[in-house]
Amino acid sequence: MIKVESGKKRVYLDWAASAPYSKTDNFVPFGNPSSHHSEGRLAKQALEDARQRCADILNVPPETLYFTSGGTESNSIALFSNLARPGKGRVISSLAEHASVREGMETLDKMGKSTGSVTVDSAGMVTNETFTKALDKYGDTRFAAIMSVNNETGAVTDIASLRDVIKKRKETAPIHFHCDLVQAIGKIPVDISNWEIDSASISAHKISGPRGIGLLYLRKPFEAFYTGGGQEKGIRGGTENTQGAAELANCLAQYADAKTVQLEYERAMSRWKKLITSLAAMERCTLIPSCRAPENDRFSPYILQAAFKNIPGEVMARALDDIGFAVSTGSACSSSSPERPVLAAMGVDEKLRVEGIRVSQGCSTTDKEIELFLEAVAEVLKFL
Amino acid sequence: MIKVESGKKRVYLDWAASAPYSKTDNFVPFGNPSSHHSEGRLAKQALEDARQRCADILNVPPETLYFTSGGTESNSIALFSNLARPGKGRVISSLAEHASVREGMETLDKMGKSTGSVTVDSAGMVTNETFTKALDKYGDTRFAAIMSVNNETGAVTDIASLRDVIKKRKETAPIHFHCDLVQAIGKIPVDISNWEIDSASISAHKISGPRGIGLLYLRKPFEAFYTGGGQEKGIRGGTENTQGAAELANCLAQYADAKTVQLEYERAMSRWKKLITSLAAMERCTLIPSCRAPENDRFSPYILQAAFKNIPGEVMARALDDIGFAVSTGSACSSSSPERPVLAAMGVDEKLRVEGIRVSQGCSTTDKEIELFLEAVAEVLKFL
Repeated sequence: MIKVESGKKRVYLDWAASAPYSKTDNFVPFGNPSSHHSEGRLAKQALEDARQRCADILNVPPETLYFTSGGTESNSIALFSNLARPGKGRVISSLAEHASVREGMETLDKMGKSTGSVTVDSAGMVTNETFTKALDKYGDTRFAAIMSVNNETGAVTDIASLRDVIKKRKETAPIHFHCDLVQAIGKIPVDISNWEIDSASISAHKISGPRGIGLLYLRKPFEAFYTGGGQEKGIRGGTENTQGAAELANCLAQYADAKTVQLEYERAMSRWKKLITSLAAMERCTLIPSCRAPENDRFSPYILQAAFKNIPGEVMARALDDIGFAVSTGSACSSSSPERPVLAAMGVDEKLRVEGIRVSQGCSTTDKEIELFLEAVAEVLKFL
Repeated sequence: MIKVESGKKRVYLDWAASAPYSKTDNFVPFGNPSSHHSEGRLAKQALEDARQRCADILNVPPETLYFTSGGTESNSIALFSNLARPGKGRVISSLAEHASVREGMETLDKMGKSTGSVTVDSAGMVTNETFTKALDKYGDTRFAAIMSVNNETGAVTDIASLRDVIKKRKETAPIHFHCDLVQAIGKIPVDISNWEIDSASISAHKISGPRGIGLLYLRKPFEAFYTGGGQEKGIRGGTENTQGAAELANCLAQYADAKTVQLEYERAMSRWKKLITSLAAMERCTLIPSCRAPENDRFSPYILQAAFKNIPGEVMARALDDIGFAVSTGSACSSSSPERPVLAAMGVDEKLRVEGIRVSQGCSTTDKEIELFLEAVAEVLKFL
């Protein structure tokens, strides 16, 4: 349980929006890593040490990792690199991507870049079939952005399998495969190298790190749309956030090494089984998608979307908030918009979309908190 | 003096690259400010409180301030808004701008946007004359980016005066006037409102704040090139860095209120007079530009560029570093490039450009440190 400022104990079930911050008191050298003097070299050393530690956990070469200001920027650097490249190739992305990709696609569109959509099935996943259909339709595809874990439903797309789809096709030109790993890292087993993805996005604050720091993985360097001051080898301009980089490395070490992920996955799955089973048994509750079941490992055990009959999601979230439980409706990044594009892409009907709430947990969530949450839902349902 | 990790005392004279970080142990609520629950609302409140405190110090309405990841991003958001706007207007910038603007101009150019240059005089300033010349040459100018304090020489361009140049012209369409204030805030008196600039960039880490946070001032909102998740009213996407915002507000309050700036300016000027007078008296030292004199208030008393005959700047900086003094050659953001575009734009000859070093101080620099620095320079000159 989390004690908020008022001193009241609360159950925080919105980890997908932002995880409680592991406060640090380890401060790294303040110098500018681009400076050549001792202070600069110390800072550069701290930065490269952080990069190496991130690389060790992610099992990739350190030179493939670029520090950014977060997941949104990592996604945008990858997407907008398409504006720096000559040629007329198309950029496609799934209809269930995070707002940072969705909005980025709109920007590309406005800039005259050809774009296209990959549909998702009713479970919210890009499947080999929907992906193949998109590649057939858009023969000029040169860049595809497909997320791993969906931030609203927890649907896990099989990235390795999609990569195989690309590899098996005899394209005349290669397709750059970008993967948003923001809700995957530290949550499900991720194998960047074996998945053979070309680029990936990671955010620190979803795994208890600070705001304003993230990673872009790039299998091979590309030309960025904008180089800024030339930092991060011209991929991301701006004075390097050494403090953030060191804290991100700490978080990856603490939460994202393969063994911890596996252990926490099992614990999370056990809590989620209880949650899903109990919610499914409530008459007024509909799980979204309807195929969501306790045993279904095609969903992340950290995120659940559910609707309650005749209760708008906003009202439900507010009622729960009032009695000490934090859940959200959609993604925090699009919470000001009442539309639910991800649910719409899955074919969820409008009424259910309005009623959806997202429950998301993290490593310090307890069985007891889930029990209390279920009691709270039952309580709220009596009055709403 | 700053104790570095090794325990050795050092004199840090590279504040223009990055200022020593004022460590904080005040942590703001961790919630996502876009979330509607209590944790989100607390975080939102902390964010808006930080915005209000920044606005109070900068004497602008809070709704004109947008948190970004730093000065580079603030500059790029302003520049790339030109890609979002329809029409064929031209973007011009001075030849002495920071790398983040210079590279941004190249990106605009590649994207087919018309661009143009504003020359600087031999002192490194954009003058009413050079600005008028540029506006005459480029009658279709709709956006001009001119920095306040130059980061390599300390040259202060009279922004209010350039604004007047624009106002007096009878343009058929308005010109958006963008000003990079990164080396001005907390250093020289700045009056955003009276200068009537349309947008401005501010970075926290130049005034002892953390990395990864900055501000974009926008007199009126514009359409951004990329909205990301829609945060900061669609101007800057990505989960808001509440902790950074609060620390930036603290730094502005501590270092950038008008009274403190004036007091520190006088102290800095007194130290700089000593430095400039003494360096000018050294046979092998040439101040850059040559008009730089102790009494000249057209330069910031926080930055000085000087060259030492027959000693490449890199060698000089290295020799000083070895005996405990941190200075730089050019800007840290372009320190990997041996070119000195700012000095070249001023007409500084190539030999002198190679020999230039930048000395920059901050609020905790002491008279004693300047004395020690002058002794160190004299010492180094004996051997080099």
